[in-house]
Amino acid sequence: MIPVKPIQFKDGKLILLDQRLLPHEETYIECNTLEDGFKAIEQMIVRGAPCIGFAGIFSLALWCQNNNFDLEKFEQACLYLKSSRPTAVNLAFEVDNVFELIKSSNVTNPHESIIEFGFIQIKLLEEKNTLMANAAIAELDRLYPEKKLNILTHCNTGFLACGTIGTALGVIQLLGAQNRIENVWVDETRPYLQGSRLTAFELQKLGIPFKVVVEGSSSYLMREKLVDAIFVGADRIVLNGDTANKIGTSSLSIVASYYKVPFYVVAPLSSFDPKMETGAEIEIELRSEEEITKIKNIKISPDHTRALNPSFDITSGETITKIICEKGCLSKPFTDSIRELFYEN
Amino acid sequence: MIPVKPIQFKDGKLILLDQRLLPHEETYIECNTLEDGFKAIEQMIVRGAPCIGFAGIFSLALWCQNNNFDLEKFEQACLYLKSSRPTAVNLAFEVDNVFELIKSSNVTNPHESIIEFGFIQIKLLEEKNTLMANAAIAELDRLYPEKKLNILTHCNTGFLACGTIGTALGVIQLLGAQNRIENVWVDETRPYLQGSRLTAFELQKLGIPFKVVVEGSSSYLMREKLVDAIFVGADRIVLNGDTANKIGTSSLSIVASYYKVPFYVVAPLSSFDPKMETGAEIEIELRSEEEITKIKNIKISPDHTRALNPSFDITSGETITKIICEKGCLSKPFTDSIRELFYEN
Repeated sequence: MIPVKPIQFKDGKLILLDQRLLPHEETYIECNTLEDGFKAIEQMIVRGAPCIGFAGIFSLALWCQNNNFDLEKFEQACLYLKSSRPTAVNLAFEVDNVFELIKSSNVTNPHESIIEFGFIQIKLLEEKNTLMANAAIAELDRLYPEKKLNILTHCNTGFLACGTIGTALGVIQLLGAQNRIENVWVDETRPYLQGSRLTAFELQKLGIPFKVVVEGSSSYLMREKLVDAIFVGADRIVLNGDTANKIGTSSLSIVASYYKVPFYVVAPLSSFDPKMETGAEIEIELRSEEEITKIKNIKISPDHTRALNPSFDITSGETITKIICEKGCLSKPFTDSIRELFYEN
Repeated sequence: MIPVKPIQFKDGKLILLDQRLLPHEETYIECNTLEDGFKAIEQMIVRGAPCIGFAGIFSLALWCQNNNFDLEKFEQACLYLKSSRPTAVNLAFEVDNVFELIKSSNVTNPHESIIEFGFIQIKLLEEKNTLMANAAIAELDRLYPEKKLNILTHCNTGFLACGTIGTALGVIQLLGAQNRIENVWVDETRPYLQGSRLTAFELQKLGIPFKVVVEGSSSYLMREKLVDAIFVGADRIVLNGDTANKIGTSSLSIVASYYKVPFYVVAPLSSFDPKMETGAEIEIELRSEEEITKIKNIKISPDHTRALNPSFDITSGETITKIICEKGCLSKPFTDSIRELFYEN
């Protein structure tokens, strides 16, 4: 289903695409030890929340391959691994999953169980992604029957991040496979350029037509009626539909709302946090100023220039058309549809 | 009034700040001939519509210094100079002004008259900029009496572009001189980075506090109530207030409108085109795709990646709070206020 595998486990080795070198070099590195896996995660050779989680699972299999199994030592290995990127929720989640699995099952060959668990987790995510993409396409069929589509997307939400077809980009991949894409507008996604570097790489590999644009062109494109729908992913969705996602998502949704262009958030239920009532409760990570004042390590701004670099923003539920998860399309009011999903089944 | 002069005429020489090397190098070049001036304009050593016009005037003075005056040959020189950047309206406008001046006056020392005319044109623009800035500050005083202000601006509209205090940045310079600025949010302005390179340079020279942000953060900043007002310039303003300006302006104005943050366009009457009724009539220049797929000549996107690079967009008059010119603040409906200004006095 995906043309380039950012993460594989073969012949007792974890094989990772070095994403730091994309899009110009496709180099794979081999991890043979837990420490190799730790470094690959820490140094962002592997990136994207789901992929980091999967790399974590297989890194623990490597530890079990190389050591006589001892639950206490294994717990130490888990703690060590989680410290490689302490804020990545998926990593801690998957490492804890593995620990509970091993602790509770008294397995004789833990590394085999862990490898199997890793493949199951990837398969489950692939299934969820496919359910989401199908739900999205049903929605588009209703709005635009038989029309080739112009889709805009922000950031990178495809196979490089997920090891599966992905969320927003998974929708686009399936549309592409059905020959339904006229063009994908890939916004560059400053400051890290996930769009012009990574999404462009993925779409090129998939053979789906695309053009890169600056984020500031969103109004131009919609005013010219060059966008049929917008698909983005999510880092966290709260009860009223407010959504934390890559910086720039919220501005894009407001422009879409102004032009009445459908704006869809695509995310698995694991990204929902219905205990939070509104986005005001979500804390936004501020990252290094140099990500803005330098590009590819070349200084752009005058020396001593200060910057503010929030990594995410909050898209108001009111500017989102629908939220698409593995259970289907959620409609407004999101407080009702999300509450029903989590609390009333 | 301005800390760095992008254009000077001294001792029979045109002296230009080489803006290609900003913000990291401040180098001046001397032009001694018309050809030197032509090259400086063509190679974008001097940039910004008003500055290009002024450089054109002084380049013609250089020609008169170096040649025995002959009206026919002078006309050839004018035509030649205008071809250096054929789409820059100010250049053709000022060259034509000079030609008419010389043709009609039978001057004995044309180079002296031209130099004098150049200084008058700069002084007139400075006066207009000051009138605009004062009108803008009166408006802010009404909205935010006695408050230190957080202002957001897009692109570069200050002394580097104008040789005077400038339009939107002229407002900010005067606010700074009155110690009224808490912070200026300078958005980087992709793809050419006029914000993070040039506006940051100007504000640093002026000693006005600022931080650079990515354009995608506009919603984040306004949601967090970190923006009191937005000031931008204009390339063309038509009868209903629709405004062509640097790509990204329109998206910014829609986000501002959503959050009810005042959004001001600052431009001299020479930027108005009241014969056009709406922005739909304005043609948008599409520039090189490589401006997006490369940054500072370093490839960002995969090989063969296509891009769409509109250089300007149309900001709808309905998302503009007021338009500020040398005659004061124009209010909505702009069709009435602009018509009154041009046709009913």
